[in-house]
Amino acid sequence: MTVPRTFQAHNPATGQVLPSTFSVTSSDELAQLMEDAGQAALPYAKLSGQRRAEFLSAAADQIAAHAEELIARAMEETALSEARLRGEVARTANQLRLFADLVRDGSWVDARLDLSNPERTPPKPDVRSMRIPLGPVVVFGASNFPLAFSVAGGDTASALAAGCPVVAKAHPAHPATSAVAAHALLVAATQTNMPHGVFSLVYDDGYEVGLSLVRHPHIRAVGFTGSRGGGMALVAAAQARPVPIPVFAEMSSVNPLVLSEAAIRARGPALVTGLIGSISGSGGQLCTQPGLLFVPEGEAGDTLLQDLAEQLMTVPACTLLSSGIRDAYDAGTAALARHADVTTRQTIQEVTPGVHCQLYEVPLGALSASPELAHEVFGPVSLAVRYADREQLARVLLELEGQLTATLHALPGELSEWQDVVDVLRARSGRLVLNGFPTGVEVGHAIVHGGPFPATSDGGSTSVGTRAIERFSRPLAYQDFPDSLLPPELQNANPLRIWRMVDGWRTQEALSPEVTA
Amino acid sequence: MTVPRTFQAHNPATGQVLPSTFSVTSSDELAQLMEDAGQAALPYAKLSGQRRAEFLSAAADQIAAHAEELIARAMEETALSEARLRGEVARTANQLRLFADLVRDGSWVDARLDLSNPERTPPKPDVRSMRIPLGPVVVFGASNFPLAFSVAGGDTASALAAGCPVVAKAHPAHPATSAVAAHALLVAATQTNMPHGVFSLVYDDGYEVGLSLVRHPHIRAVGFTGSRGGGMALVAAAQARPVPIPVFAEMSSVNPLVLSEAAIRARGPALVTGLIGSISGSGGQLCTQPGLLFVPEGEAGDTLLQDLAEQLMTVPACTLLSSGIRDAYDAGTAALARHADVTTRQTIQEVTPGVHCQLYEVPLGALSASPELAHEVFGPVSLAVRYADREQLARVLLELEGQLTATLHALPGELSEWQDVVDVLRARSGRLVLNGFPTGVEVGHAIVHGGPFPATSDGGSTSVGTRAIERFSRPLAYQDFPDSLLPPELQNANPLRIWRMVDGWRTQEALSPEVTA
Repeated sequence: MTVPRTFQAHNPATGQVLPSTFSVTSSDELAQLMEDAGQAALPYAKLSGQRRAEFLSAAADQIAAHAEELIARAMEETALSEARLRGEVARTANQLRLFADLVRDGSWVDARLDLSNPERTPPKPDVRSMRIPLGPVVVFGASNFPLAFSVAGGDTASALAAGCPVVAKAHPAHPATSAVAAHALLVAATQTNMPHGVFSLVYDDGYEVGLSLVRHPHIRAVGFTGSRGGGMALVAAAQARPVPIPVFAEMSSVNPLVLSEAAIRARGPALVTGLIGSISGSGGQLCTQPGLLFVPEGEAGDTLLQDLAEQLMTVPACTLLSSGIRDAYDAGTAALARHADVTTRQTIQEVTPGVHCQLYEVPLGALSASPELAHEVFGPVSLAVRYADREQLARVLLELEGQLTATLHALPGELSEWQDVVDVLRARSGRLVLNGFPTGVEVGHAIVHGGPFPATSDGGSTSVGTRAIERFSRPLAYQDFPDSLLPPELQNANPLRIWRMVDGWRTQEALSPEVTA
Repeated sequence: MTVPRTFQAHNPATGQVLPSTFSVTSSDELAQLMEDAGQAALPYAKLSGQRRAEFLSAAADQIAAHAEELIARAMEETALSEARLRGEVARTANQLRLFADLVRDGSWVDARLDLSNPERTPPKPDVRSMRIPLGPVVVFGASNFPLAFSVAGGDTASALAAGCPVVAKAHPAHPATSAVAAHALLVAATQTNMPHGVFSLVYDDGYEVGLSLVRHPHIRAVGFTGSRGGGMALVAAAQARPVPIPVFAEMSSVNPLVLSEAAIRARGPALVTGLIGSISGSGGQLCTQPGLLFVPEGEAGDTLLQDLAEQLMTVPACTLLSSGIRDAYDAGTAALARHADVTTRQTIQEVTPGVHCQLYEVPLGALSASPELAHEVFGPVSLAVRYADREQLARVLLELEGQLTATLHALPGELSEWQDVVDVLRARSGRLVLNGFPTGVEVGHAIVHGGPFPATSDGGSTSVGTRAIERFSRPLAYQDFPDSLLPPELQNANPLRIWRMVDGWRTQEALSPEVTA
């Protein structure tokens, strides 16, 4: 028997090794967990939405009950502030409750009934369909949201809600936080008598365990939030399987933010304040942080950038999430500073381990010539791109890669002139923000946290909000099944009173007796 | 200037070369068509559902108006029967009308409104989202449905309905049929004043043009119906792009059909009649043809297979769609005949160019040992797998690959005993059929013509029915946009009276005035 490899996390604020030791999940353990997840798939899929809602609600309660421990561990492991993490605990619990409500309601399954017509030639069959769970899902948590996008985060909540067992991989930068979140989920699973294997957690400070999970035949889908390189490696592994599986990876976005000259003239100070919050909040380590600001040439834009640079200097230094992220940030900002066309507007390099916000500037034409300038540098940094002409701006925006968000600040009276730019931003992003800031993702039914590649590996989906459940399900049709053998969602009486489409009409009613006679 | 390469189709019934000559689309022509499709993307995406419905309805009318020409060309190019092709013309027109109705109604966009709450801390933004088109789509038609799954078939109809320009590649086995269908679509586009480039057709008797299309940066998604090899080649090309795109490929399925002993005893003759129609209809060249029959050991199963073999012998010989399909059929049936565990139940090899239905038999255990026996042999052939024990049957069914359909024939009184088998078939297929036959796909709202890999490359979708539109669209959110800048689907007044989700509630109503005040 080999001795398991162990690892420890670091406190990014102090650089010190944290006391807890974590064993890399062995291949034997992994095999057992996969077996358990596979065994859980059918009984868990067959549970009612009501029962799954009990589990998710209990999980939310457990997350709330473990708030202090989660916050303490996450502060040590991520250096994020207590206030930010307190908000994240609430969001994590709220997401679990949102999905509990969604599956308690039950209408998400998109039930459709096309009724039979035996008089037709040939006779028309009875066809009824609904979404069913895919099977076991592996979830890779994000470093920048140790709670809301990690072990008990949105991917896990939506997969469990869909009826899929989840195997989560603890992020190596916050294993202790992950352990507490997993404990909360497992307590909830036991309390609500869920099938053994419905949830489990694995550890690795490298890539092997994660890749083994993605390659395991029992796994049917992957949820991931992280770097482009990491996401693409998982996509490649998933595609190389004998049976390829979908990977829903949220990867990379610089979230272009366009400012009109009129908006700057009218609201300059408020824009500066908003930009500072959006660029520097959580150390700039948000997926929707605006890394690319399009600022008009001329005096109004000059003044805005001058004010922004001065006020960014007063933002306290922040500690980045890990030494790896710090290294990438240093390399990314150094490359910007080195670029021939780039002017440094604001930089303070003196603080360690903290970093200050950086602000760079470049003319619009240089962005076309050097598209790498638009690649994400994760952390508190923005590149201001100076434009003279709106048409030229639209053309350059069209060359951008896919984005999670795109933002326009313009005055009501001039919006019609900005339609071309809005059209381009619409084609390139998952969420358009008008006169606001892209950070702060509102979890709900309408939100889209997704977007064209490379913002995500699957531009047709969202990883936040109730639509996220669709990723982990697929439609299944039943043809000419008797009522008693159909799932309740498709039975004549509509016992769950869900919204259904019956012969093309949306209704919550039961089928009328003459139809079912 | 190089002289374009040309090709001609063959009449599979006579082997003769057909008179029309088709030029392989040159790279210059292709570049121009791609430019046109790219230019059409935004104006076409912005058209109302009403306008797109006009186009699709006109296309349906044009298909119907060209019925005789379509049937004449398709009979020459595919050797399918007039009756079958007449039905296919009707289905093609009906599919276009179904999608016209869908986009005229407009609710398919899944509009969601989460309203603002400025009182909350932090203020809650107004977030509204709906599905928008992906952009230009390339469609590869199927050889076996020269109309309903080809140039003007379901993939084209659903992509055009979603708001995506379509570039169709003519199947090299039926280029003249493709030309007529494309002409019908282009007439409809002109009649209804659609943007130039909304639809175009390209030709190639090889793979180059198709791969160029899939690799072209303007293309945003691919629809394909055909072989597993062809589909996987397109998936690989789409994944290797700098910006990967989704491929919706419907590829390979043997459509397991399970017979209980009681069902055979009660309904033997009717089962034989049904099986013969399902196995041999359209020369067995249907995606949902039951290629794998699970028949109980013992006298009842013996009698059924004996009757089936005898009656299959009386089915007239049929001509397969192309020499390539004929070669693959000959190779596939020869491999079955050669297999040590396989018994030949019915075979007539004498007719050329026609083929007779083949029936083979194998014990259940042999299927586990030789999983290649369950690979699709396209054409009029079925392999009967004899089982003794239901539990063992369920285990072997679980080893099958993903399927478009799975069918069970059992009596009402014994269905509860078959639950384990139903559970396995549910996990392995896109449509479950009870006491019926999988061929004959009912186009509607509830149908699922999809299923786990390798039935399709994307098990979360369907290529038939109104749900197919979802493949060519993605959700986009608007945050804090004024009513006047929102698309009608998301405006306060709900001018299209579509079904929407407002703060989680489904409604067709406008927002109430106090909400929008």
